[in-house]
Amino acid sequence: MKRVLVIGAAGMIGRKLTARLARDGGLQGAAIGELLLHDVVESSAPAAPFKVKTTASDLSAPGEAERLVAERPDLIFHLAAIVSGEAEADFEKGYRINLDGTRRLFEAIRKIGDGYKPRVVFTSSIAVFGAPFPEAIGDEFLSAPLTSYGTQKAIDELLLADYSRRGFFDGISLRLPTICVRPGKPNRAASGFFSGIIREPLAGQEAVLPVPKSVRHWFASPRAAIGFLLHAAWMDTAQLGARRNLTMPGVAATVGEQIEALRRLAGDAAVRLIREEPDATIMRIVEGWPRNFDPRRALALGFRADASFDDIIRIHMEDELGQRTPAPRPGRA
Amino acid sequence: MKRVLVIGAAGMIGRKLTARLARDGGLQGAAIGELLLHDVVESSAPAAPFKVKTTASDLSAPGEAERLVAERPDLIFHLAAIVSGEAEADFEKGYRINLDGTRRLFEAIRKIGDGYKPRVVFTSSIAVFGAPFPEAIGDEFLSAPLTSYGTQKAIDELLLADYSRRGFFDGISLRLPTICVRPGKPNRAASGFFSGIIREPLAGQEAVLPVPKSVRHWFASPRAAIGFLLHAAWMDTAQLGARRNLTMPGVAATVGEQIEALRRLAGDAAVRLIREEPDATIMRIVEGWPRNFDPRRALALGFRADASFDDIIRIHMEDELGQRTPAPRPGRA
Repeated sequence: MKRVLVIGAAGMIGRKLTARLARDGGLQGAAIGELLLHDVVESSAPAAPFKVKTTASDLSAPGEAERLVAERPDLIFHLAAIVSGEAEADFEKGYRINLDGTRRLFEAIRKIGDGYKPRVVFTSSIAVFGAPFPEAIGDEFLSAPLTSYGTQKAIDELLLADYSRRGFFDGISLRLPTICVRPGKPNRAASGFFSGIIREPLAGQEAVLPVPKSVRHWFASPRAAIGFLLHAAWMDTAQLGARRNLTMPGVAATVGEQIEALRRLAGDAAVRLIREEPDATIMRIVEGWPRNFDPRRALALGFRADASFDDIIRIHMEDELGQRTPAPRPGRA
Repeated sequence: MKRVLVIGAAGMIGRKLTARLARDGGLQGAAIGELLLHDVVESSAPAAPFKVKTTASDLSAPGEAERLVAERPDLIFHLAAIVSGEAEADFEKGYRINLDGTRRLFEAIRKIGDGYKPRVVFTSSIAVFGAPFPEAIGDEFLSAPLTSYGTQKAIDELLLADYSRRGFFDGISLRLPTICVRPGKPNRAASGFFSGIIREPLAGQEAVLPVPKSVRHWFASPRAAIGFLLHAAWMDTAQLGARRNLTMPGVAATVGEQIEALRRLAGDAAVRLIREEPDATIMRIVEGWPRNFDPRRALALGFRADASFDDIIRIHMEDELGQRTPAPRPGRA
């Protein structure tokens, strides 16, 4: 009877993970006994062949983390965070949720003691890296974040590695690429346009492009991201050694390449809905972001990226728009 | 009228820094108005041509950091820390002092606001690095510490960089090499033998060597370390950009090279006082430590290491034992 706790269950990744667990009826073939969904707002419980409970509270409030782990979940997905734009706009809130909330969770697990040692899968971010960068960022490149969000994630990574080394839990953190195509409404992440220029045209709406087409970035589909989380939940962490913070594989693409992929899948009419409107503030933020990686460790450990940016768009069309997508044309996609 | 605050003033580096400021009568020719010395125990105030105050308290206790910065020191040296061995033995104490104490200090500065923006010079450590290493660790190598002490220092570095980027203070952190020859009694640092095998024989006493002579490590004399701190206090930090955590230059030497330097300066009789007594626990800790660096940024920014391990021993003989040391023999030292 495995207990699974998802913190940040009401967010985009949390909802997709929950839906996937419900659909699969378990984790890699192993039955789930109970799924506990937590977020600061009430999570919606999917229909599932196992018990699903939901709870809402502020993880950073005293006693909340202790309450969440009191029933000793075997597996904890910690996905909750204030996004980059908000953490930059509200310094205290970002540190309170992204640093103190995470540390309280880790402390609550440690204080149970008594042999309790859950797997903890934590979503970090490529925002732990800051310019200047090499052409492709390797697994030994330093974390020198240029945002408070990236700083908080980098600190959480250090804590996760130390708590794991000490044997308090069995942690692994995944630096997710920028998720694309992010469904739904834009959030306060400065990276929102990377999804907007695909999502809005596919819905027949205009999208604003605030940066030049030469901007290169690092992407994963929501489906690939859920695959990373499930792999991290079940892999043999002894392979990780002491370095438990992994850059996930992704697809490197320029905005120009994103747009050409959109043209291949949805035609010129869709592309014409993208309006170029340079924004110096967004450009300055994006200039500090990573463009490309060489994530050898994660690949060797079995994490798998999307095959191409065309595939990233196809996954959005299938999973969000319920469309059947054209098969890749040889030599193009 | 410059106010200077030294936190951790009763420690070895703190006492040497204080003595140097008192002897120089100021900082690089600029007069000091007032020097405030803080530690968890009472600091001894040196005779100085400026006012010296001392205060003792626990930096991590609520309100203490606020009290320390209430008079708005222009320059803050933050040297206070639980050493590596103790931070490993007492998990909660290490995090309370080395992480929470530092964060409380940074928060106290931030909350003054009102244009207050002191220079903050923080002593970090090469313990932020963990094996496996390249042959020489460059300025872009990741922080993957293998101790709680190293984790706490790495987190402090991230906070210092973010608070500086936000404009709350003007911070710089220095990853000090292992200080050698550390005067006085051994402390609880696992690195203690690196000093012991020089210090004890020079005092006519036996020293224990717990590791093989092939072990290579990275050293700076106390005099060089004080030089780093003073340089960091006065340099133009605009040169640093966003990366404010610097590996200091040092001398890479094997234990065998340390011993040969001792032989050159104090003869065979001194070397015969070193007793080899392998200790598997210390060896295992030391195996995770860095051996050699390529600290280009710090060198380009004007930080200067000792010239050789012979010089490191000479400095100990001059500064601690009041001896005049033999001039370097050409081709040897």
